[in-house]
Amino acid sequence: MSPGTATGHVVAEEVLRARAYLMRLAEPPAPRLGHLVALLGPVEAAERIRGGADLGRHVSSEVSGRRDVDRAEADLEAVRALGGRLLVPEDPGWPAAAMASFEAPDLVGHADWVAPLGLWVRGPGSLAEHADGAHRSVAVVGSRAATGYGKWVARGWSASLADDGVAVVSGAAHGIDGEAHRGCLAAGGATVAVLACGVERAYPAAHARLLATIAERGAVVSEYPVGAVPARHRFLVRNRLVAALATATLVVEAGVRSGAARTATVARELGRVVMAVPGPVSSALSVGSHHLARQPGVGLVGSVEHVLEDIGPAGRFAVPPPRPRGPLDGLSTPAVRVHGALRGSATSTAATLAREAGVDPRVVPAALDELAAAGLVVPDGEWGWCRPV
Amino acid sequence: MSPGTATGHVVAEEVLRARAYLMRLAEPPAPRLGHLVALLGPVEAAERIRGGADLGRHVSSEVSGRRDVDRAEADLEAVRALGGRLLVPEDPGWPAAAMASFEAPDLVGHADWVAPLGLWVRGPGSLAEHADGAHRSVAVVGSRAATGYGKWVARGWSASLADDGVAVVSGAAHGIDGEAHRGCLAAGGATVAVLACGVERAYPAAHARLLATIAERGAVVSEYPVGAVPARHRFLVRNRLVAALATATLVVEAGVRSGAARTATVARELGRVVMAVPGPVSSALSVGSHHLARQPGVGLVGSVEHVLEDIGPAGRFAVPPPRPRGPLDGLSTPAVRVHGALRGSATSTAATLAREAGVDPRVVPAALDELAAAGLVVPDGEWGWCRPV
Repeated sequence: MSPGTATGHVVAEEVLRARAYLMRLAEPPAPRLGHLVALLGPVEAAERIRGGADLGRHVSSEVSGRRDVDRAEADLEAVRALGGRLLVPEDPGWPAAAMASFEAPDLVGHADWVAPLGLWVRGPGSLAEHADGAHRSVAVVGSRAATGYGKWVARGWSASLADDGVAVVSGAAHGIDGEAHRGCLAAGGATVAVLACGVERAYPAAHARLLATIAERGAVVSEYPVGAVPARHRFLVRNRLVAALATATLVVEAGVRSGAARTATVARELGRVVMAVPGPVSSALSVGSHHLARQPGVGLVGSVEHVLEDIGPAGRFAVPPPRPRGPLDGLSTPAVRVHGALRGSATSTAATLAREAGVDPRVVPAALDELAAAGLVVPDGEWGWCRPV
Repeated sequence: MSPGTATGHVVAEEVLRARAYLMRLAEPPAPRLGHLVALLGPVEAAERIRGGADLGRHVSSEVSGRRDVDRAEADLEAVRALGGRLLVPEDPGWPAAAMASFEAPDLVGHADWVAPLGLWVRGPGSLAEHADGAHRSVAVVGSRAATGYGKWVARGWSASLADDGVAVVSGAAHGIDGEAHRGCLAAGGATVAVLACGVERAYPAAHARLLATIAERGAVVSEYPVGAVPARHRFLVRNRLVAALATATLVVEAGVRSGAARTATVARELGRVVMAVPGPVSSALSVGSHHLARQPGVGLVGSVEHVLEDIGPAGRFAVPPPRPRGPLDGLSTPAVRVHGALRGSATSTAATLAREAGVDPRVVPAALDELAAAGLVVPDGEWGWCRPV
């Protein structure tokens, strides 16, 4: 199987190799590496880093220590040996619209919310179809220690969503996740499992058969190369992809400060529809759902019909809810990027800021004017700029 | 026991007799009779009606056939024999603030939503305390065929509300109503039962002991005199009082088009806080609650803490939700009343309109100007006015 054939489009091998190399460089999310790649393109970014070019302190801090490790060839071979591929933004199958939400002006500069540099994928399922509007998808998430009630809802509603042509995205974990995938598969639907480890790994082990079925009929997806082990922080980072790859997030059962609740928060920040399934007030696992349903912009759904109503073209949350205002709200994208490139109270020149922020040097003066007007930067010496003390 | 002593204030016997007479004249709600009483006072209104004065077609249609039936003395004696009284707007114990919501400009002219002319009351409980803001109260309503889950929530939460000094108002029916009263009483709280029949009647019969206890420790209340039988339409009319007498309405379990759902609708129109308790999505009786919780201005409450949060001074629904705009929105109260007095496409004079609308004849010309500007009335002949055809 040649790279990219799943979509009938061949991405240049050097692009795949460059991205595979870059994805090993920094532990995601790596916002400054992402900016560098956006500025230079993956091939040049990879070459410069390999060549030891001075990339500014911030990018260097993200990629330090790994720039000499090039396992790109081996990683690509490993995923191809599984019948999988590396899906990259240069591929028409890339879920571009879904990932574009990470570029919303008020999310730029937020370290936790950056798009992945690529996605390792097993299975025939198309992520672009699922997330780009033509086909609707719902992330069904909840507790690993779900109750019988929660599992019954997750499985039954996922099957009904599949019947309606809605893809189900989840994290393949015990409890709600597993039931969501199973319900979707049982109805012959497309399901996407996003992992916090390599796509070859059966994690949890009890879901080995389930993951194999998803890899045959849907898609198993990860930011991490074959061989990567699951780690605590990777689950949190993975959850942002679960939210981003679906048009809506449905929380079935969740503790108040659970991973599922966090996925819902990310989904809301990305402007996605967020819905909560009620349950008995006597159930500890419905407490999180009820807490969530009281937040602005979160819908209560008592049936699959409510879900379809809310994600449909006439859904009540079609317009993203207003986000809390921060100091960078209302600034232009270059200004936000330049602000992110300021090194604490140290002094930078406009040229350094352009390079670190990954913006055209010609727009830097205007961006600095904007930041100065907002009190976010002060001149320092004849050519320098720094954050106000 | 002399009339009105429960509040240490003696209402003139002629006022009580007049209101007792008027309350028998028309089946509540009787908006035009209410306007007449507001205009002339109860004593003069009763005298004129008894004397056969021409009261305009609309008032006459409401009171026709009963103007010669005067059972006021007997009704007052009957309630006093039970240790009860007739509570009237002239009494400082009248829940004036609660009843004032019926006077909101956009409710005037709405036949279903008018304040009662008086309330027959058994028991020491003060309605004014419960509804007038200093003390908070919650109407706990729901299905008669409640599940064990619903009953458990109604009883437990009502007890917790009573612990917090919140009075519980309900309709003494089987199911949720009964459990709400019982929970409140068990915690030593004040509870108000609003009946659709005379306050002496044990309805339902199985609640005879419960009603006797409420009459001893709380208040049993009705618009209907001793001896009145419950009738289907009286339950609907009664439900508006349940909503009006409480600062908030909590729906525990309810079918989509149930009486409890109707009480919630009235509560919303009266600008009250409305809350719905979630339950298993698999329970037919939680469907109505979930449906309700998706309506604008209705809060989902997963715990008693949520209820206290929502009804507290910092409650999220402290400001009444916006109501749908109708043609009369934004008009002055006299204009709305005059509009309501126009007889279809028939022609009325300003003098007739003043009388029928119960407004000062001097404000009628301005009211007609206002209505004409809004296209709601047109001149007809030299002295007449009618609705546009």
